[in-house]
Amino acid sequence: MSKVMAVNAGSSSLKFQLLEMPEETVLMQGIIERIGQDNAEITIKYGKDIEPKRLIGAEEGHISLTKNGGQKFEHEMAIKNHDQAIDVLLQKLTDLGIVKDFSEITGVGHRVVAGGEWFNHSVVVTEEVLAKIDRLADYAPLHNPANAMGIRAFQKLLPDALSVAVFDTSFHQTMPEKNYLYSIPYEYYARYGARKYGAHGTSHRYVTERAAEMLNIPLEQFNAISFHLGAGASITAIKNGKSYDTSMGFTPLAGVTMATRSGDVDPSLVYYIQEREGLSNEEMLSVLNKKSGLLGISTISSDMRDLEDVQDTNTHAKLALDMFYDRVIRYAGQYFAELGRVDAVIFTAGIGENDAVTRAKVLESLAFAGVKLDAEANNVRGKETILTTQDSSVAGLLIPTNEELMIARDVEALR
Amino acid sequence: MSKVMAVNAGSSSLKFQLLEMPEETVLMQGIIERIGQDNAEITIKYGKDIEPKRLIGAEEGHISLTKNGGQKFEHEMAIKNHDQAIDVLLQKLTDLGIVKDFSEITGVGHRVVAGGEWFNHSVVVTEEVLAKIDRLADYAPLHNPANAMGIRAFQKLLPDALSVAVFDTSFHQTMPEKNYLYSIPYEYYARYGARKYGAHGTSHRYVTERAAEMLNIPLEQFNAISFHLGAGASITAIKNGKSYDTSMGFTPLAGVTMATRSGDVDPSLVYYIQEREGLSNEEMLSVLNKKSGLLGISTISSDMRDLEDVQDTNTHAKLALDMFYDRVIRYAGQYFAELGRVDAVIFTAGIGENDAVTRAKVLESLAFAGVKLDAEANNVRGKETILTTQDSSVAGLLIPTNEELMIARDVEALR
Repeated sequence: MSKVMAVNAGSSSLKFQLLEMPEETVLMQGIIERIGQDNAEITIKYGKDIEPKRLIGAEEGHISLTKNGGQKFEHEMAIKNHDQAIDVLLQKLTDLGIVKDFSEITGVGHRVVAGGEWFNHSVVVTEEVLAKIDRLADYAPLHNPANAMGIRAFQKLLPDALSVAVFDTSFHQTMPEKNYLYSIPYEYYARYGARKYGAHGTSHRYVTERAAEMLNIPLEQFNAISFHLGAGASITAIKNGKSYDTSMGFTPLAGVTMATRSGDVDPSLVYYIQEREGLSNEEMLSVLNKKSGLLGISTISSDMRDLEDVQDTNTHAKLALDMFYDRVIRYAGQYFAELGRVDAVIFTAGIGENDAVTRAKVLESLAFAGVKLDAEANNVRGKETILTTQDSSVAGLLIPTNEELMIARDVEALR
Repeated sequence: MSKVMAVNAGSSSLKFQLLEMPEETVLMQGIIERIGQDNAEITIKYGKDIEPKRLIGAEEGHISLTKNGGQKFEHEMAIKNHDQAIDVLLQKLTDLGIVKDFSEITGVGHRVVAGGEWFNHSVVVTEEVLAKIDRLADYAPLHNPANAMGIRAFQKLLPDALSVAVFDTSFHQTMPEKNYLYSIPYEYYARYGARKYGAHGTSHRYVTERAAEMLNIPLEQFNAISFHLGAGASITAIKNGKSYDTSMGFTPLAGVTMATRSGDVDPSLVYYIQEREGLSNEEMLSVLNKKSGLLGISTISSDMRDLEDVQDTNTHAKLALDMFYDRVIRYAGQYFAELGRVDAVIFTAGIGENDAVTRAKVLESLAFAGVKLDAEANNVRGKETILTTQDSSVAGLLIPTNEELMIARDVEALR
């Protein structure tokens, strides 16, 4: 029995979850935001039966009860950097009684965005691994340095805990060459690693394994299309339990319409706009990453819920939603043709778990292949559900994703 | 009864075909290449029964018999510009006895690459139309100026013939907004016409009409996927006889792997390579248009036939072919899901008409939707054929394209 921490470190934030393994019980989860500022905010949610080790003074934070019967600790304070954030976190965990002694935390698993071609599975972090994560910052300039910072800070404060890196890209390393290469001069692949890496691998891996289990199909024979639809969205074709193709590309910009990302665009058009607007490469990429997608088309919001609320009266909101559905449907058909045989169509992440309309549109678009939506079953949010009728040729599944559990499992497997 | 000329003017070439209308008989076809150089080459093919008006001296050109029983006129000479090219062409047509008097040519139809949103069908060329074609050069800088040059030259030499512009893009003007827009800020569409225009419209229109006729389905109820696969390749989803979506984009760079064009690429990757290679926007676009595709991956040839010849021993050639098949299959599935119901899958243009392997790969990839290849029927080149078995859910069709006939029909319809 041991406690494992699953960590997702951003440039100014730190998300974490502590799990009891191998029971896979979530002991606490939370986030520290605005690291580097005077008003950083710590939020920790944990079980109702846990009692603080000592009385928490008002100036040290605030404990309240949550709607679903747990406890929530909140505190605003100045936090200089990730080292201090993790120091504060560990201190609070003992103060709150969640952990009696740091030695209980036997492993820490870190989400790392870019693993390039070096990592096709999770690994114990060594100096060599850290050096590679640093070098891969070229592929994920905003994320990898933050991920590495999180790893180093935990290593310093919990030197005895096993440190494990879990890469967003590693699940996709099984894609065949014909799918991961672009039709550009081959020398760019050789010289710069110019290829498709994909993303959300940990999530696609989790729902794939869970779906095969739900349907009682051996993973190594399991074909599926996995729709991870959130603010970032990626769709993966699963062949024999492995990633065979995925909609994100060299970076997470490619693929379907997202909250603020464009997805696929004719590169000629990108240059055409850039030149007429007088933008630098960096500025143009920022437009494609931050001002496009649902936000760019609707001109009002990057959040599907906002658009759904006004779609009856706002034609731009309606158009943005229609484009999103359409782009997702394109990949549904594409991956059906690539795979030939599909056992399941899986929906996960914010939109996939909560938006019945998107799921219905996708499943209905596959009627030509014998997929039959169960409209009543589909009227559900955020819990494991079979969305199709018994005579459907393919099972439609809603599976809430659980990247933290996957990370904890990987840590356990490497202990 | 009248003669109509179908013209495709490039920057240094002129392709032409003369048809007897409304009989739709081809009287002659040919090309003038290397216009602007001292060694321009005229080639005209025509029927075996036509006798020259006068004896052609050796210094005026050379007449031979062709393999399929016609005659071929060839001549090399200095040709300064398009005006002179057309002057020479008309002179040769009377010398060879193909035309007795220029007044027989009642109309000239010109292929124009970019019609933007101004032209959703073919039009009689007025000064206003010519001005618009000039302004649309922004979208097709290599093609529209050459097309306009051809129009002006024919107008000067055949002032009484009806001059008609037939746009490559006009067939695609029926695409719905959700399909022609990109998920980028909407203001770029408003400001620059940043959208999908597509290409090969005349070819997609021809094979669509012909397929509906072959299958005896009213055009306005006809759904199909049309594969125009040549050195340039585009795939169109046809809904109710009209273009509903197409794989080429703002420019003909987008879509599937082509002879030297990349098709779809993550725009982030384009910038990544450009910066590391120190290329200008123009140079990078040139790489994507001229050094990518089959050539870029295989590193040896842009021609499928060359790659097929060596694929057993050359892994790069094999990879390039596999990527081409795969990208075409992706669109097959995508458009199936977008259309819901498909009556026919149509193959045309160089590869579509002649490469049985590509056709088989695409039709086999649609087996999950009940498509059944007739392997024996598919063993055919360049003639109208039904490629699927009688119990196939969808008809596979080979239809040789005929853009010139379509152009001549449009000229006749506008007389």
